[in-house]
Amino acid sequence: MGTYNHYVIVKFKDGVKVEELIQEMEKMVSGIDHVKSFEWGKDTEGHDMLTQGFTHAFLMTFNEKEALNAFQVHPNHVEFSKIFSPALEKIVVMDFPSITLKAPT
Amino acid sequence: MGTYNHYVIVKFKDGVKVEELIQEMEKMVSGIDHVKSFEWGKDTEGHDMLTQGFTHAFLMTFNEKEALNAFQVHPNHVEFSKIFSPALEKIVVMDFPSITLKAPT
Repeated sequence: MGTYNHYVIVKFKDGVKVEELIQEMEKMVSGIDHVKSFEWGKDTEGHDMLTQGFTHAFLMTFNEKEALNAFQVHPNHVEFSKIFSPALEKIVVMDFPSITLKAPT
Repeated sequence: MGTYNHYVIVKFKDGVKVEELIQEMEKMVSGIDHVKSFEWGKDTEGHDMLTQGFTHAFLMTFNEKEALNAFQVHPNHVEFSKIFSPALEKIVVMDFPSITLKAPT
């Protein structure tokens, strides 16, 4: 508990090679120790009224905000952003200290 | 690993008693065994370009999609939705099988 969370949801532009991009993201995240946990997924329900067109969610946790800050400016992350940002049609980012009621087991 | 995730981000309407509403949500989630884990948070960065005005994130995990389905129709959840939905200015919901690269410890 007590993690600092960085949650990102996106809709990619048409024509983007999403699988390749996510492989690059996984490689980037694997190489940065500040990232405590990383999971992602593709919405399977596709109710437009609920997803608002967003298709992918990426969830990262950090031990504290300073670790997220260090991640943000890490050269591997900066480099990855150069290919990630132009691939996005839209994005929402939420950064917050996590309040845990039921912990993952 | 292998959870099915239900990720919700919202912006509340002006004047909504957010703390009380979240207390009700915590009570509701505590009483439904299908919910494996539950955490939430309020964005602390407030970069409008990134949050798009969304302020709160709620993440629930389930052992499988069927458990999420059971949660959706659970009477306590249905009851809670009656006070939650009218309080929202906007919402995005993403439902997805989680692919875990780094597991939470």
